[in-house]
Amino acid sequence: MYTIGIDLGGTNLRIGLFNEQGEIIEEQNCSTEVEKGPHYTINIMAEAITSLKEKYEVKAIGIGAPGPLNPHEGVIIEPPNLTGWVNIPLVKLLEEKVALPVKLENDANAAALAEATLGAGKGASSVFFITVSTGIGGGFVLNGQLVSGAQGNCGEIGNMIVNPSHDAYQGPGLNKGALEGVASGTAIGRIGQERLNITNGAQGVFQLAEQGNETAQLILDEAINYLAIGLANIVHTVNPEIIVIGGGVMKSQSLILQPLIEKTKKYLYPSLKASLNIKPALLDQKAGLIGAGLLPN
Amino acid sequence: MYTIGIDLGGTNLRIGLFNEQGEIIEEQNCSTEVEKGPHYTINIMAEAITSLKEKYEVKAIGIGAPGPLNPHEGVIIEPPNLTGWVNIPLVKLLEEKVALPVKLENDANAAALAEATLGAGKGASSVFFITVSTGIGGGFVLNGQLVSGAQGNCGEIGNMIVNPSHDAYQGPGLNKGALEGVASGTAIGRIGQERLNITNGAQGVFQLAEQGNETAQLILDEAINYLAIGLANIVHTVNPEIIVIGGGVMKSQSLILQPLIEKTKKYLYPSLKASLNIKPALLDQKAGLIGAGLLPN
Repeated sequence: MYTIGIDLGGTNLRIGLFNEQGEIIEEQNCSTEVEKGPHYTINIMAEAITSLKEKYEVKAIGIGAPGPLNPHEGVIIEPPNLTGWVNIPLVKLLEEKVALPVKLENDANAAALAEATLGAGKGASSVFFITVSTGIGGGFVLNGQLVSGAQGNCGEIGNMIVNPSHDAYQGPGLNKGALEGVASGTAIGRIGQERLNITNGAQGVFQLAEQGNETAQLILDEAINYLAIGLANIVHTVNPEIIVIGGGVMKSQSLILQPLIEKTKKYLYPSLKASLNIKPALLDQKAGLIGAGLLPN
Repeated sequence: MYTIGIDLGGTNLRIGLFNEQGEIIEEQNCSTEVEKGPHYTINIMAEAITSLKEKYEVKAIGIGAPGPLNPHEGVIIEPPNLTGWVNIPLVKLLEEKVALPVKLENDANAAALAEATLGAGKGASSVFFITVSTGIGGGFVLNGQLVSGAQGNCGEIGNMIVNPSHDAYQGPGLNKGALEGVASGTAIGRIGQERLNITNGAQGVFQLAEQGNETAQLILDEAINYLAIGLANIVHTVNPEIIVIGGGVMKSQSLILQPLIEKTKKYLYPSLKASLNIKPALLDQKAGLIGAGLLPN
């Protein structure tokens, strides 16, 4: 028996066929062409599924998509990077077309499931996954099961308040002093523009920090400090066995990982410092697709 | 078949016999007499258990105790309010004496299990319980199962940082700007002493606020605001179906509950505001004992 995983992004649509071990057997990537509307993209999904069904015994479909969405009702609500997808009952529409059960989850939750099952969190009883990229998201996997949350919003730690006194950027729906506003790639890039007058985003700040620029190093220190507060808050809330960190910002791992671990320890109860376990993600860009393929299991 | 639940506190030792529905059949309360050392108290527990075993078919024992403790190893580490209990292997010691399986949990986790099973969270798929008293603690119950945490520290939200810029009290092991330092009964009482020159603690602040004292109302507003940040952070981290709040501070529920709900909503993603479900605890002082009785189930 096989599953089909779909990673529905604002730019790319990735479709994979998975065996029961979660290995990709076949994969196809195309453009989401979001400007053509949701029904166009749903038809592409349906065609790919139908064609795979002819060759393989497919039992179910999993989809990872950007939030907000309702995984229990299978509805995409209104994601900022899926323009035109407003209250789209994706699960219902696709199930009608392909006559197979479809499961929908937030893309970060899908990635969390992949990292917990086959990636850096493999074997741990509880895994909190965090992705630090243009935004900050995450997911929680307990005893091998994804914790979706009552409204599917488990792991939405980008909106966790880490400093209400902070005057930072407040995005649409995002809290003042939220983690995403002070520690995401976008935030690092924005602060770089303000203080260093550079326009190449977080990348530029990382480059200057590596060259020894003190302002750039300070910008990173601040972001790492807020990430550490976020991680310590997660530890004191759910005490996971391991925290796995992925996303574009972690490509500059050598600058971030060790100081992040040290700072996080500083904020933990003494009895928790020694057991803190933070590891970089292993599945990288593929995590979302692999997680989608694992969703129906 | 019956269970025995033990609520081990710094002052009181409560022992109850429970049927399979979690109802208390017999109960005895005595003083912990912590000054006589752990072995004295453990002997009292063993005697009570032995005596109950003669009359009832007891299958197991559950104990709720103050942290830090290690529930997986059954060891009390060094709780501030159990003086002299340093690295005491309570589970092993008691199992040897009574020849029954013993399960140990943090007292707030035990209370969370009670509220989720028989109290305000009954029937919900996920329950985050919070107790706001001299300290702030909590616990998380998912699909009827207590989430203990890898080191047994799930729900230690008293140490969650809600404002790192805050100059508040920083207790032993407690973070600067941690929830417990800015929103517990102790914190409210301390701020009352500073700004109102009163010495009767949180109680005094509540009384003055009810009489319309503006400074007292402001102190409560600030504490409620920090509690709201803590609750919103919990929602964005695990998205529980219901949050149940207990503890001494909630005795002044009329002053706290409604503003707390309103402020928490302010900090939530738009898609989560309508579904926010915060309820006062139902089991009150008994939650710890009842939860201890439920632990072996």
